[in-house]
Amino acid sequence: MNDSNIQLDDNGHLKHFLTIEGLERSLLLNILETAETFSGVGARAVKKVPILRGKTVANLFFEPSTRTRTTFELAAKRLSADILSLNISNSATKKGESLLDTLHTLEAMHCDMFIVRHANSGAAHFIASHVAPNISVINGGDGRHAHPTQAMLDMFTIRKHKPDFSKLRVAIVGDILHSRVARSEIHALSILGASEIRVIGPRTLIPWHIETMGVHIFHDMNAGLKDVDVIVVLRLQQERMRSALLPSESEYFRLYGLTEEKLALAKPDAIVMHPGPINRGIEIDSRVADSRQSVILQQVSHGIAIRMAVMAMTMQSQSGIQPEGGHADPD
Amino acid sequence: MNDSNIQLDDNGHLKHFLTIEGLERSLLLNILETAETFSGVGARAVKKVPILRGKTVANLFFEPSTRTRTTFELAAKRLSADILSLNISNSATKKGESLLDTLHTLEAMHCDMFIVRHANSGAAHFIASHVAPNISVINGGDGRHAHPTQAMLDMFTIRKHKPDFSKLRVAIVGDILHSRVARSEIHALSILGASEIRVIGPRTLIPWHIETMGVHIFHDMNAGLKDVDVIVVLRLQQERMRSALLPSESEYFRLYGLTEEKLALAKPDAIVMHPGPINRGIEIDSRVADSRQSVILQQVSHGIAIRMAVMAMTMQSQSGIQPEGGHADPD
Amino acid sequence: MNDSNIQLDDNGHLKHFLTIEGLERSLLLNILETAETFSGVGARAVKKVPILRGKTVANLFFEPSTRTRTTFELAAKRLSADILSLNISNSATKKGESLLDTLHTLEAMHCDMFIVRHANSGAAHFIASHVAPNISVINGGDGRHAHPTQAMLDMFTIRKHKPDFSKLRVAIVGDILHSRVARSEIHALSILGASEIRVIGPRTLIPWHIETMGVHIFHDMNAGLKDVDVIVVLRLQQERMRSALLPSESEYFRLYGLTEEKLALAKPDAIVMHPGPINRGIEIDSRVADSRQSVILQQVSHGIAIRMAVMAMTMQSQSGIQPEGGHADPD
Repeated sequence: MNDSNIQLDDNGHLKHFLTIEGLERSLLLNILETAETFSGVGARAVKKVPILRGKTVANLFFEPSTRTRTTFELAAKRLSADILSLNISNSATKKGESLLDTLHTLEAMHCDMFIVRHANSGAAHFIASHVAPNISVINGGDGRHAHPTQAMLDMFTIRKHKPDFSKLRVAIVGDILHSRVARSEIHALSILGASEIRVIGPRTLIPWHIETMGVHIFHDMNAGLKDVDVIVVLRLQQERMRSALLPSESEYFRLYGLTEEKLALAKPDAIVMHPGPINRGIEIDSRVADSRQSVILQQVSHGIAIRMAVMAMTMQSQSGIQPEGGHADPD
Repeated sequence: MNDSNIQLDDNGHLKHFLTIEGLERSLLLNILETAETFSGVGARAVKKVPILRGKTVANLFFEPSTRTRTTFELAAKRLSADILSLNISNSATKKGESLLDTLHTLEAMHCDMFIVRHANSGAAHFIASHVAPNISVINGGDGRHAHPTQAMLDMFTIRKHKPDFSKLRVAIVGDILHSRVARSEIHALSILGASEIRVIGPRTLIPWHIETMGVHIFHDMNAGLKDVDVIVVLRLQQERMRSALLPSESEYFRLYGLTEEKLALAKPDAIVMHPGPINRGIEIDSRVADSRQSVILQQVSHGIAIRMAVMAMTMQSQSGIQPEGGHADPD
Repeated sequence: MNDSNIQLDDNGHLKHFLTIEGLERSLLLNILETAETFSGVGARAVKKVPILRGKTVANLFFEPSTRTRTTFELAAKRLSADILSLNISNSATKKGESLLDTLHTLEAMHCDMFIVRHANSGAAHFIASHVAPNISVINGGDGRHAHPTQAMLDMFTIRKHKPDFSKLRVAIVGDILHSRVARSEIHALSILGASEIRVIGPRTLIPWHIETMGVHIFHDMNAGLKDVDVIVVLRLQQERMRSALLPSESEYFRLYGLTEEKLALAKPDAIVMHPGPINRGIEIDSRVADSRQSVILQQVSHGIAIRMAVMAMTMQSQSGIQPEGGHADPD
């Protein structure tokens, strides 16, 4: 299944944003550069541009999320869109046909964009395949499959500190098996030409055959962190412990928690990233999370700029609106 | 009880919208024509008009509803109103006096409009009788009594396809007994001069003496659907099954579910309507719901135009604002 | 702990609003006068001023509240701010460090103001001590400590009816012990120079040493209400009954419920206030609540003006915006 077909319109512009896989390097760079024009909006006295004024953005969060939902909502508000937040009970969408009826009803309400988060891999793609042609779908995370805006905000953050991807050695640490963030980051780093991508984690949490994605596998932190430029620490889902994939939190922290000692093995100017919210003392030590090498809070700010960029670009594909964040909304 | 008194201001304009019963034909036509001016707003690039800018609309949904609440909310946003959504717990409003205290508190907050949905028949009327004179109340469905905006969006939809009501034979199918939609539709069709109104359903779900409303009763679908121009299929509430008013879903579908075979008895250009959300395979077959004769999704779009019209008209009664959807908000 | 230091910027302007304690009389008067300029906004056809346009206000309600939250939300909307409402589960903020991570994340999203309500005394102060310098914190009620906007809306209401505080005898009736409202009111009345402040309640609900705040203690309503100009009736939390601090509702009403008979002991033009929502027949008789001496609903309206004033003033401290409610938003 090649998602890039459905993601692009006939002119090669971004119409939906479902996955990083299969996108061109130039398109990823275009997203990063568009986000650059929006990243100043958050610092203005009037944090508002009229780009999506009169558009209706529907948040379809089938799976709960505070941070992703909040940043999409803020991005939409700062683009002046109207936002519809739906409480989608599981019961109402048990049957596939019923989900489609919900979608068609929202189409009939003249929604312009769906932000979709779903526990099932492929949900955003399924929805994008079935909506009316004038609606854009943005994947806010689907199962273990993809979380493309998270990957792009991480690329944006990396590029701020290390502009040349071809010189980068990046390590992703933790539960790679269940992580849509890891999958999307590996695709993005690989398309942007990172020199080396490493995944580090216990055998139970590394997917089989992941080396076919072009990554190097490490089960030992000391070896894996050696001389890297970027460390992406993944959040440890506590369900993993209960399902016996992991022994205990303290054992996990001893082996894979990022401490100052382990960080010292990376390059001296290595940056530390985390999609948040962080579990202090489980996957990351507080001294590392709060250190000068940590760019975790920058990632949050960049998340809004990236989401504004993607929302503006997909709407541009629909209607020819220019996604430029340069001008403030005249009051 | 004649609701029309309280619904109209001294100039005969709509001040509240509580029930269709007792309204003049000219007023219903006025609502339809005002909605016509708003129906284009949803298709614009900028779906926004400034008519209710600076007004505060409070959603008082004592009974949960996704679709009605969402369309009222979108209608308010596209009219540029500020919206207040209140979570009204049952406990906080157990006593009548306490409900009045809540209303008076919202008045003191300078709310301009209450959208009310309540499980008790007469709740919207009660509220309209007790609010300050500058507040408009719109009934979003009260018990078994009335759902006037649903009826008007259905009239709007019918008129798009069959402009002359005097030539229409309309059948309403299903649980007439518990349906506020059916009651409001019968009133609207009768005021607009429909040639014949039929209700079709099992004996347990047809109210006694309903023939006094001028309708013809059928218990057999084949007879009831013969030569009709419009079929309104009602949603089957699954509680009815549990309370032993109906034998089983499959038995109901066999007798009253709208299938292609039964639809063939109606006029060849008959349209099929449903207030939604639909129960496929219970009250309607998927082939009918998705057929070219189905106008169910058009009803959703028209629901927003009707609600914008009613909100604009009641505010006009309050303040002389012109309810015209013709001009986009500048910028 | 002197909160006034942290509340004021270097020019002595209000930067956070955490407590009344320690503020200058001139600052309280400034709040009342700024609120005066906003109190007309609620009565306008277009209830909207552009003062906080493009600002992001985050509601951090760790403790549920309908009325306070709603009035802050309406105040923010009428100032044209964008609003972020967070559902903060108790579990997500069990650890102090985790609360700080939430705050820093919201800072990274470029929020401009936090409205905080929390069950723990000192929570708003703690948050104000830890946020970035460009963020203002407004206390929407913390534990038993303070509820400064409630106190100021009460001062605003009193001044409308009795402009000269130096001539006023004020009685606060009920559960003084657990009341942040009472504490903030005593501070405000005392700073504004009220002639006499009385607290009336059973021994179990009067805090030890409260006379050091300059109030007179009464356990008998007849003595305490004698010749007062203002009566503030506190809401009785029903938990108090369960925890055996009080015998029963009817016994409480007999002794401390404000009835017409007891009200007759006050001055003939005395006003009756209550922070709401009222428990009719428990702390106040319906005939008093609905009488001409009751200004309870005026308090609600004034609450929006006061919150607009405080939000505008703290943002002015941040950015030099003029907090004037005098001009409507053009268009």
